[in-house]
Amino acid sequence: MKYPKGIKPRQYFNSRRSKPDKRVKYGQRGMTLEKDLDITNNYYLQTSRAVIHKKPTPVQIVNVDYPSRNKAKIDEAYFKTPSTSDYNGIYKAKYIDFEAKETKNKTRFPFINIHAHQVDHMKQCYEHGGIVFLIIRFSSLDETYLMPFGTFLVHWRNYLDGKRKSIAYKDIKSGSCIIRQGMNPRIDYLTAVDEIYFRNGEFQ
Amino acid sequence: MKYPKGIKPRQYFNSRRSKPDKRVKYGQRGMTLEKDLDITNNYYLQTSRAVIHKKPTPVQIVNVDYPSRNKAKIDEAYFKTPSTSDYNGIYKAKYIDFEAKETKNKTRFPFINIHAHQVDHMKQCYEHGGIVFLIIRFSSLDETYLMPFGTFLVHWRNYLDGKRKSIAYKDIKSGSCIIRQGMNPRIDYLTAVDEIYFRNGEFQ
Repeated sequence: MKYPKGIKPRQYFNSRRSKPDKRVKYGQRGMTLEKDLDITNNYYLQTSRAVIHKKPTPVQIVNVDYPSRNKAKIDEAYFKTPSTSDYNGIYKAKYIDFEAKETKNKTRFPFINIHAHQVDHMKQCYEHGGIVFLIIRFSSLDETYLMPFGTFLVHWRNYLDGKRKSIAYKDIKSGSCIIRQGMNPRIDYLTAVDEIYFRNGEFQ
Repeated sequence: MKYPKGIKPRQYFNSRRSKPDKRVKYGQRGMTLEKDLDITNNYYLQTSRAVIHKKPTPVQIVNVDYPSRNKAKIDEAYFKTPSTSDYNGIYKAKYIDFEAKETKNKTRFPFINIHAHQVDHMKQCYEHGGIVFLIIRFSSLDETYLMPFGTFLVHWRNYLDGKRKSIAYKDIKSGSCIIRQGMNPRIDYLTAVDEIYFRNGEFQ
Protein backbone atom coordinates (compact mmCIF):
# COMPACT_ATOMS: atom_id res chain seq x y z
CA MET A 1 0.00 0.00 0.00
CA LYS A 2 1.23 3.46 -0.85
CA TYR A 3 0.94 6.10 1.85
CA PRO A 4 1.18 9.84 1.22
CA LYS A 5 4.75 11.03 1.60
CA GLY A 6 5.90 11.93 5.11
CA ILE A 7 2.89 10.33 6.78
CA LYS A 8 3.28 7.22 8.88
CA PRO A 9 0.69 4.43 8.49
CA ARG A 10 -0.96 5.04 11.86
CA GLN A 11 -1.14 8.76 11.35
CA TYR A 12 -2.62 8.05 7.96
CA PHE A 13 -5.33 5.74 9.22
CA ASN A 14 -6.15 8.06 12.10
CA SER A 15 -6.45 10.91 9.68
CA ARG A 16 -8.56 8.84 7.31
CA ARG A 17 -10.97 8.09 10.10
CA SER A 18 -11.49 11.65 11.29
CA LYS A 19 -10.60 14.03 8.48
CA PRO A 20 -9.96 12.19 5.23
CA ASP A 21 -7.23 13.61 2.98
CA LYS A 22 -6.78 16.69 5.15
CA ARG A 23 -3.46 15.67 6.69
CA VAL A 24 -1.22 16.15 3.67
CA LYS A 25 -0.59 19.84 4.00
CA TYR A 26 1.83 21.90 1.97
CA GLY A 27 3.83 22.70 5.07
CA GLN A 28 4.33 19.01 5.75
CA ARG A 29 5.29 18.31 2.18
CA GLY A 30 8.08 20.87 2.51
CA MET A 31 9.46 18.77 5.36
CA THR A 32 9.64 15.58 3.36
CA LEU A 33 13.13 15.91 1.91
CA GLU A 34 14.57 16.90 5.28
CA LYS A 35 12.91 13.97 7.02
CA ASP A 36 14.01 11.54 4.31
CA LEU A 37 17.57 12.79 4.65
CA ASP A 38 17.46 12.41 8.44
CA ILE A 39 16.40 8.80 8.03
CA THR A 40 19.02 8.24 5.31
CA ASN A 41 21.84 9.80 7.36
CA ASN A 42 20.85 7.72 10.34
CA TYR A 43 20.98 4.60 8.16
CA TYR A 44 24.45 5.56 6.89
CA LEU A 45 25.57 6.11 10.49
CA GLN A 46 24.17 2.78 11.74
CA THR A 47 25.79 0.89 8.86
CA SER A 48 29.13 2.75 9.36
CA ARG A 49 29.04 4.04 5.81
CA ALA A 50 29.44 7.72 6.70
CA VAL A 51 29.04 10.24 9.51
CA ILE A 52 26.81 13.00 8.17
CA HIS A 53 24.50 15.19 10.24
CA LYS A 54 22.13 18.04 9.64
CA LYS A 55 23.22 21.11 11.54
CA PRO A 56 20.81 22.48 14.12
CA THR A 57 18.70 25.46 13.06
CA PRO A 58 20.59 28.57 14.18
CA VAL A 59 18.64 30.47 16.80
CA GLN A 60 19.42 33.76 18.58
CA ILE A 61 18.48 33.15 22.19
CA VAL A 62 17.35 36.35 23.93
CA ASN A 63 15.84 35.13 27.19
CA VAL A 64 15.90 31.92 29.18
CA ASP A 65 13.59 31.24 32.08
CA TYR A 66 14.33 28.73 34.85
CA PRO A 67 10.95 27.54 36.15
CA SER A 68 12.75 24.90 38.20
CA ARG A 69 16.34 24.21 39.15
CA ASN A 70 17.09 21.73 36.37
CA LYS A 71 14.82 23.01 33.65
CA ALA A 72 15.71 25.84 31.30
CA LYS A 73 12.95 27.23 29.12
CA ILE A 74 13.84 29.53 26.27
CA ASP A 75 10.99 32.06 26.14
CA GLU A 76 12.39 34.52 23.65
CA ALA A 77 14.45 33.57 20.62
CA TYR A 78 14.60 34.35 16.91
CA PHE A 79 15.65 32.47 13.81
CA LYS A 80 19.07 33.48 12.51
CA THR A 81 20.15 33.34 8.88
CA PRO A 82 22.37 30.26 8.53
CA SER A 83 25.97 31.03 7.57
CA THR A 84 26.73 27.54 6.27
CA SER A 85 24.95 24.78 4.41
CA ASP A 86 22.69 22.43 6.34
CA TYR A 87 24.61 19.15 6.03
CA ASN A 88 28.20 18.12 6.47
CA GLY A 89 30.29 15.21 7.62
CA ILE A 90 32.84 12.61 6.59
CA TYR A 91 32.65 9.90 3.92
CA LYS A 92 35.56 7.70 2.81
CA ALA A 93 37.89 9.99 4.80
CA LYS A 94 36.69 12.97 2.73
CA TYR A 95 34.91 16.09 3.90
CA ILE A 96 31.40 16.22 2.49
CA ASP A 97 29.14 19.30 2.43
CA PHE A 98 25.77 19.83 0.83
CA GLU A 99 22.55 21.75 0.78
CA ALA A 100 19.19 20.11 0.07
CA LYS A 101 16.25 21.90 -1.49
CA GLU A 102 12.97 20.86 -3.00
CA THR A 103 10.53 22.55 -5.33
CA LYS A 104 6.98 21.81 -6.41
CA ASN A 105 7.76 23.33 -9.78
CA LYS A 106 7.91 20.67 -12.51
CA THR A 107 10.01 22.48 -15.11
CA ARG A 108 12.57 24.55 -13.20
CA PHE A 109 14.37 25.03 -9.91
CA PRO A 110 14.13 28.69 -8.80
CA PHE A 111 17.27 30.21 -7.22
CA ILE A 112 15.06 31.95 -4.68
CA ASN A 113 15.41 28.75 -2.67
CA ILE A 114 19.16 29.27 -2.17
CA HIS A 115 20.87 31.87 0.02
CA ALA A 116 24.00 33.64 -1.24
CA HIS A 117 25.96 33.00 1.97
CA GLN A 118 25.22 29.29 1.70
CA VAL A 119 26.69 29.30 -1.80
CA ASP A 120 29.70 31.26 -0.51
CA HIS A 121 30.23 28.66 2.19
CA MET A 122 29.95 25.77 -0.27
CA LYS A 123 32.38 27.51 -2.61
CA GLN A 124 34.93 27.78 0.20
CA CYS A 125 34.56 24.08 1.02
CA TYR A 126 34.82 23.24 -2.68
CA GLU A 127 38.04 25.24 -3.03
CA HIS A 128 39.50 23.45 0.01
CA GLY A 129 38.98 20.09 -1.71
CA GLY A 130 35.72 18.90 -0.20
CA ILE A 131 32.98 16.89 -1.89
CA VAL A 132 30.35 19.59 -2.30
CA PHE A 133 26.99 19.32 -4.03
CA LEU A 134 23.29 20.14 -3.97
CA ILE A 135 20.45 17.70 -3.55
CA ILE A 136 17.52 19.00 -5.57
CA ARG A 137 14.13 17.33 -5.37
CA PHE A 138 11.28 17.93 -7.77
CA SER A 139 8.59 16.86 -5.32
CA SER A 140 5.78 16.87 -7.88
CA LEU A 141 7.78 14.51 -10.10
CA ASP A 142 9.17 12.51 -7.15
CA GLU A 143 12.66 12.82 -8.65
CA THR A 144 15.77 13.76 -6.67
CA TYR A 145 19.09 14.81 -8.19
CA LEU A 146 22.63 15.31 -6.98
CA MET A 147 24.24 18.27 -8.73
CA PRO A 148 27.99 18.69 -8.16
CA PHE A 149 28.87 22.15 -6.90
CA GLY A 150 31.08 22.92 -9.92
CA THR A 151 28.08 22.46 -12.22
CA PHE A 152 25.82 24.46 -9.94
CA LEU A 153 28.31 27.34 -9.85
CA VAL A 154 27.95 27.90 -13.63
CA HIS A 155 24.20 28.34 -13.22
CA TRP A 156 24.64 30.45 -10.09
CA ARG A 157 26.89 32.90 -11.99
CA ASN A 158 24.17 33.32 -14.62
CA TYR A 159 21.83 34.14 -11.75
CA LEU A 160 24.21 36.72 -10.25
CA ASP A 161 24.64 38.29 -13.71
CA GLY A 162 20.88 38.65 -13.92
CA LYS A 163 20.63 36.25 -16.85
CA ARG A 164 18.64 33.51 -15.16
CA LYS A 165 16.27 33.20 -12.23
CA SER A 166 16.16 29.40 -12.19
CA ILE A 167 17.79 26.24 -13.48
CA ALA A 168 15.72 24.43 -16.11
CA TYR A 169 14.68 20.89 -15.25
CA LYS A 170 16.41 19.54 -18.38
CA ASP A 171 19.72 21.20 -17.34
CA ILE A 172 19.46 19.58 -13.92
CA LYS A 173 18.69 16.25 -15.55
CA SER A 174 21.73 16.51 -17.85
CA GLY A 175 24.13 18.03 -15.29
CA SER A 176 23.32 15.86 -12.31
CA CYS A 177 23.17 12.28 -11.15
CA ILE A 178 19.70 10.98 -10.31
CA ILE A 179 19.45 9.60 -6.79
CA ARG A 180 17.90 6.19 -6.32
CA GLN A 181 15.03 6.34 -3.85
CA GLY A 182 13.87 3.36 -1.86
CA MET A 183 13.00 2.04 1.56
CA ASN A 184 16.44 1.97 3.12
CA PRO A 185 18.36 4.12 2.49
CA ARG A 186 15.48 6.37 1.62
CA ILE A 187 17.54 8.71 -0.60
CA ASP A 188 20.72 6.85 -1.47
CA TYR A 189 22.80 9.91 -2.30
CA LEU A 190 26.14 8.33 -1.37
CA THR A 191 25.79 5.89 -4.25
CA ALA A 192 25.46 8.95 -6.50
CA VAL A 193 28.55 10.40 -4.77
CA ASP A 194 30.40 7.16 -5.58
CA GLU A 195 29.45 7.42 -9.25
CA ILE A 196 30.57 11.03 -9.55
CA TYR A 197 33.54 11.33 -7.18
CA PHE A 198 34.86 7.78 -6.71
CA ARG A 199 34.87 6.26 -10.17
CA ASN A 200 36.86 3.00 -10.06
CA GLY A 201 36.89 3.30 -6.29
CA GLU A 202 39.36 6.17 -6.18
CA PHE A 203 38.66 9.81 -5.47
CA GLN A 204 38.86 12.04 -8.51
CA MET B 1 49.82 46.33 27.99
CA LYS B 2 48.10 43.19 29.11
CA TYR B 3 44.30 43.26 29.37
CA PRO B 4 42.21 40.73 31.28
CA LYS B 5 41.06 37.91 29.04
CA GLY B 6 37.91 38.43 27.00
CA ILE B 7 37.80 42.17 27.71
CA LYS B 8 38.45 44.68 24.94
CA PRO B 9 40.62 47.73 25.72
CA ARG B 10 37.69 50.18 25.71
CA GLN B 11 35.56 47.96 27.89
CA TYR B 12 38.52 47.62 30.20
CA PHE B 13 39.12 51.33 30.59
CA ASN B 14 35.41 52.00 31.03
CA SER B 15 35.28 49.39 33.68
CA ARG B 16 38.41 50.75 35.35
CA ARG B 17 36.78 54.14 35.60
CA SER B 18 33.52 53.01 37.17
CA LYS B 19 34.01 49.64 38.82
CA PRO B 20 37.64 48.61 38.84
CA ASP B 21 38.34 44.87 38.40
CA LYS B 22 34.67 43.94 38.62
CA ARG B 23 34.18 43.09 34.94
CA VAL B 24 36.00 39.77 34.86
CA LYS B 25 33.24 37.51 36.06
CA TYR B 26 33.31 33.75 36.23
CA GLY B 27 30.40 33.51 33.80
CA GLN B 28 32.33 35.52 31.26
CA ARG B 29 35.46 33.51 31.80
CA GLY B 30 33.52 30.35 30.90
CA MET B 31 32.72 31.90 27.52
CA THR B 32 36.32 32.80 26.77
CA LEU B 33 37.41 29.67 24.95
CA GLU B 34 34.30 29.64 22.76
CA LYS B 35 34.72 33.32 21.88
CA ASP B 36 38.42 32.90 21.21
CA LEU B 37 37.67 29.98 18.90
CA ASP B 38 35.00 32.00 17.05
CA ILE B 39 37.54 34.75 16.41
CA THR B 40 40.20 32.20 15.43
CA ASN B 41 37.89 30.33 13.03
CA ASN B 42 36.85 33.61 11.47
CA TYR B 43 40.52 34.49 10.99
CA TYR B 44 41.19 31.10 9.37
CA LEU B 45 38.19 31.65 7.08
CA GLN B 46 39.25 35.18 6.07
CA THR B 47 42.79 34.04 5.32
CA SER B 48 41.51 30.96 3.39
CA ARG B 49 43.38 28.63 5.69
CA ALA B 50 40.40 26.46 6.61
CA VAL B 51 36.61 26.41 6.75
CA ILE B 52 35.67 25.51 10.32
CA HIS B 53 32.48 26.56 12.10
CA LYS B 54 30.91 26.03 15.47
CA LYS B 55 27.59 24.27 15.11
CA PRO B 56 24.52 26.12 16.38
CA THR B 57 23.24 25.10 19.81
CA PRO B 58 20.56 22.46 19.26
CA VAL B 59 17.17 23.69 20.36
CA GLN B 60 13.79 21.95 20.43
CA ILE B 61 11.33 24.55 19.20
CA VAL B 62 7.85 24.05 20.68
CA ASN B 63 6.01 27.23 19.78
CA VAL B 64 6.54 30.10 17.36
CA ASP B 65 4.54 33.31 17.52
CA TYR B 66 4.11 35.65 14.54
CA PRO B 67 3.58 39.13 16.02
CA SER B 68 3.84 40.56 12.50
CA ARG B 69 3.87 39.14 9.00
CA ASN B 70 7.64 38.95 8.60
CA LYS B 71 8.70 38.36 12.16
CA ALA B 72 8.77 34.97 13.82
CA LYS B 73 9.32 34.89 17.57
CA ILE B 74 10.09 31.60 19.24
CA ASP B 75 8.35 31.79 22.60
CA GLU B 76 8.81 28.22 23.80
CA ALA B 77 11.91 26.16 23.19
CA TYR B 78 14.25 23.90 25.15
CA PHE B 79 17.91 23.01 24.94
CA LYS B 80 18.55 19.61 23.38
CA THR B 81 21.50 17.38 24.17
CA PRO B 82 23.95 17.72 21.28
CA SER B 83 24.52 14.51 19.31
CA THR B 84 27.81 15.64 17.79
CA SER B 85 30.83 17.66 18.78
CA ASP B 86 30.68 21.44 18.55
CA TYR B 87 33.17 22.12 15.78
CA ASN B 88 33.81 20.68 12.35
CA GLY B 89 34.97 21.65 8.89
CA ILE B 90 37.66 21.20 6.29
CA TYR B 91 41.42 21.80 6.46
CA LYS B 92 43.92 20.81 3.75
CA ALA B 93 41.15 18.79 2.08
CA LYS B 94 40.71 16.77 5.30
CA TYR B 95 37.67 16.48 7.51
CA ILE B 96 38.33 18.02 10.90
CA ASP B 97 36.22 17.53 14.03
CA PHE B 98 36.81 18.62 17.59
CA GLU B 99 35.34 19.46 20.93
CA ALA B 100 36.62 22.34 23.08
CA LYS B 101 36.42 22.39 26.86
CA GLU B 102 37.92 24.46 29.62
CA THR B 103 38.41 23.94 33.31
CA LYS B 104 39.41 26.19 36.17
CA ASN B 105 41.06 23.21 37.83
CA LYS B 106 44.86 23.56 37.79
CA THR B 107 45.85 19.93 38.23
CA ARG B 108 43.31 17.85 36.32
CA PHE B 109 40.65 17.87 33.62
CA PRO B 110 37.44 16.24 34.93
CA PHE B 111 35.55 14.00 32.48
CA ILE B 112 32.30 15.46 33.77
CA ASN B 113 32.83 18.14 31.12
CA ILE B 114 32.46 15.62 28.26
CA HIS B 115 29.27 13.88 27.10
CA ALA B 116 29.39 10.21 26.09
CA HIS B 117 27.53 10.79 22.80
CA GLN B 118 30.04 13.47 21.85
CA VAL B 119 32.83 10.95 22.36
CA ASP B 120 30.88 8.37 20.34
CA HIS B 121 30.52 10.87 17.51
CA MET B 122 34.22 11.74 17.57
CA LYS B 123 35.12 8.05 17.59
CA GLN B 124 33.01 7.51 14.45
CA CYS B 125 34.72 10.43 12.69
CA TYR B 126 38.12 9.14 13.84
CA GLU B 127 37.38 5.67 12.44
CA HIS B 128 36.35 7.22 9.12
CA GLY B 129 39.76 8.86 8.81
CA GLY B 130 39.06 12.37 10.05
CA ILE B 131 41.39 14.62 12.04
CA VAL B 132 39.76 14.45 15.45
CA PHE B 133 40.95 15.99 18.70
CA LEU B 134 40.05 17.87 21.86
CA ILE B 135 41.05 21.39 22.73
CA ILE B 136 41.49 21.57 26.48
CA ARG B 137 42.10 24.86 28.24
CA PHE B 138 43.29 25.24 31.79
CA SER B 139 41.89 28.73 32.21
CA SER B 140 43.58 29.37 35.55
CA LEU B 141 46.96 28.56 34.02
CA ASP B 142 46.13 30.25 30.68
CA GLU B 143 47.37 27.14 28.86
CA THR B 144 45.54 25.45 25.98
CA TYR B 145 46.31 21.99 24.63
CA LEU B 146 45.38 19.96 21.61
CA MET B 147 44.95 16.28 22.52
CA PRO B 148 44.60 13.87 19.56
CA PHE B 149 41.49 11.73 19.87
CA GLY B 150 43.50 8.49 19.93
CA THR B 151 45.29 9.66 23.09
CA PHE B 152 42.07 10.88 24.65
CA LEU B 153 40.38 7.53 24.00
CA VAL B 154 42.86 5.71 26.27
CA HIS B 155 41.94 8.03 29.15
CA TRP B 156 38.24 7.82 28.30
CA ARG B 157 38.32 4.02 28.56
CA ASN B 158 39.81 4.31 32.04
CA TYR B 159 36.90 6.58 32.88
CA LEU B 160 34.33 4.12 31.51
CA ASP B 161 35.99 1.33 33.48
CA GLY B 162 35.57 3.40 36.62
CA LYS B 163 39.33 3.73 37.10
CA ARG B 164 39.63 7.49 36.59
CA LYS B 165 37.37 10.52 36.90
CA SER B 166 39.75 12.96 35.25
CA ILE B 167 42.92 13.31 33.22
CA ALA B 168 45.88 14.60 35.20
CA TYR B 169 47.41 17.85 34.01
CA LYS B 170 50.80 16.17 33.55
CA ASP B 171 49.25 13.51 31.28
CA ILE B 172 47.65 16.21 29.16
CA LYS B 173 50.97 18.05 29.02
CA SER B 174 52.82 14.92 27.89
CA GLY B 175 50.12 13.58 25.53
CA SER B 176 49.16 16.79 23.78
CA CYS B 177 50.56 19.64 21.76
CA ILE B 178 50.44 23.04 23.43
CA ILE B 179 48.61 25.65 21.35
CA ARG B 180 50.30 28.98 20.78
CA GLN B 181 48.06 31.82 21.89
CA GLY B 182 48.36 35.33 20.53
CA MET B 183 46.51 38.25 19.02
CA ASN B 184 45.65 36.77 15.63
CA PRO B 185 44.93 33.92 15.40
CA ARG B 186 43.89 33.97 19.03
CA ILE B 187 44.28 30.20 19.53
CA ASP B 188 46.42 28.93 16.68
CA TYR B 189 45.28 25.32 16.85
CA LEU B 190 45.88 24.58 13.16
CA THR B 191 49.61 25.04 13.68
CA ALA B 192 49.34 22.34 16.35
CA VAL B 193 47.36 20.22 13.84
CA ASP B 194 50.23 20.70 11.36
CA GLU B 195 52.77 19.51 13.92
CA ILE B 196 50.80 16.40 14.82
CA TYR B 197 49.06 15.37 11.58
CA PHE B 198 51.09 16.95 8.76
CA ARG B 199 54.69 16.34 9.69
CA ASN B 200 56.88 17.15 6.64
CA GLY B 201 53.80 18.66 5.01
CA GLU B 202 52.11 15.32 4.37
CA PHE B 203 49.18 13.82 6.19
CA GLN B 204 50.11 10.93 8.45
